Amino acid sequence: MNSITSRDNPRIREYVQLSSQKKARIRAGLFVLEGVKLLEEAFFSGIEIESVYITPECLESGKSQLAVLEQLGEKVFLITGAAASRLFQSKTPQGVCAVCRIPEHRPDFDKMGRYLGLWDLQDPGNVGTMLRTADALGFDGVILSRDCCDLYNLKTVRAAMGALFRMPLLVTDMQAFVTEYRDKLTFYASVVDADAPGITSIRFPAGSVMMIGNEGNGLSAEQVALCGNRVTIPMTGRAESFNAAMAATILMWEMCRRS
Amino acid sequence: MNSITSRDNPRIREYVQLSSQKKARIRAGLFVLEGVKLLEEAFFSGIEIESVYITPECLESGKSQLAVLEQLGEKVFLITGAAASRLFQSKTPQGVCAVCRIPEHRPDFDKMGRYLGLWDLQDPGNVGTMLRTADALGFDGVILSRDCCDLYNLKTVRAAMGALFRMPLLVTDMQAFVTEYRDKLTFYASVVDADAPGITSIRFPAGSVMMIGNEGNGLSAEQVALCGNRVTIPMTGRAESFNAAMAATILMWEMCRRS
Repeated sequence: MNSITSRDNPRIREYVQLSSQKKARIRAGLFVLEGVKLLEEAFFSGIEIESVYITPECLESGKSQLAVLEQLGEKVFLITGAAASRLFQSKTPQGVCAVCRIPEHRPDFDKMGRYLGLWDLQDPGNVGTMLRTADALGFDGVILSRDCCDLYNLKTVRAAMGALFRMPLLVTDMQAFVTEYRDKLTFYASVVDADAPGITSIRFPAGSVMMIGNEGNGLSAEQVALCGNRVTIPMTGRAESFNAAMAATILMWEMCRRS
Repeated sequence: MNSITSRDNPRIREYVQLSSQKKARIRAGLFVLEGVKLLEEAFFSGIEIESVYITPECLESGKSQLAVLEQLGEKVFLITGAAASRLFQSKTPQGVCAVCRIPEHRPDFDKMGRYLGLWDLQDPGNVGTMLRTADALGFDGVILSRDCCDLYNLKTVRAAMGALFRMPLLVTDMQAFVTEYRDKLTFYASVVDADAPGITSIRFPAGSVMMIGNEGNGLSAEQVALCGNRVTIPMTGRAESFNAAMAATILMWEMCRRS
């Protein structure tokens, strides 16, 4: 196994750039992940892994499946000394990280399945959690507006727990997308408004998109109008106090049960 | 308005202790919160506020409702200089924080309402989010085992978004509690098991408790047996990949719709 000790090794520099800069990720078409579990999820989901960096302690702990490391062969590097302290900065470093190729796995809209739309979501944890829920509920794809937070920063990757490796994704100009697809797909704008149709009163047709808006402001009046249909979580109580990820969970859950 | 400049002022020392040490919180019966919104939520929820610390910038920004500060009168302190840099350490300091009394607001089990049980939950963000969801759905109380993470650390307070100020709470020996109440209340142990009764097939009687287990391990076989009833989220897909807060959201949502 090759080993790297210097903090200025070009591979270490590349990793730090990819981990901290969205621009570097987009330019290279690469992202990074941390931890044994995510590495295995990526590997078994067919994500192309460019390189793996592992500490001797992690290797000896036997936590990482040897099968994965063996198959990756020359792509695995042993990291020690100053290189290790530069790579593994988190409070509870897991001792293994990897550089992976961003998958191109676009949703198939001809399938007329169930889709989630995220318009201007800003919190990486929220976006990751919503991807995870969409994956758990068997959604067929997620569409993200370009002004959403970056999908491949470490926080999103962590919160998505592998959903990012499996879920078909499209990052696009959302206004143009809705305009182009509104004759084919049915768009539902989620709103907090007691007068909007309740989620439990709707029967979702094939090819439905649940659109979620920005955490603080929700969808704008223009965005709602463009979607054409509104939907709300009918609650007598304090429904306005759901956070975006909780609301999206309930909406997606009911969408699965009503189509 | 009194003002504090020294970083060694006893009030500053007390705040730092309360914010970082669970023991100090329990001993004093006090907790701390940060931010204009939480301060107002606490005030209007009837939480007893011992002291408010505010920077001149925050005061001048007019973000904080003057009404609240006026009513708190001599409890408000202007914080400048070294005292400010010690109090407001977060990346995006809001410029206002407060010391509050931990409310004693025990659930009324004679009401035979809907309750959430949290057994050995470790992540403050998860616990806060679950409290927030229980609040939004109008639950009547939350019971927490003593080995759950502390309810009043800043992360939980932040994620709960005021639910902590309103929701009746009981922290107790969960095994003893279930044993004592199992003749009166009906306990449902949430499990990941395709053979367990699905949440959509259950009709919940008055006085039901939805029990959620530890994030990594779920409820143990003994805990499940003690609860007496099992419930799962029926999914053909990848239900095992829900995170604890998402699963709890779906379970609580369905519980409200089926009782």
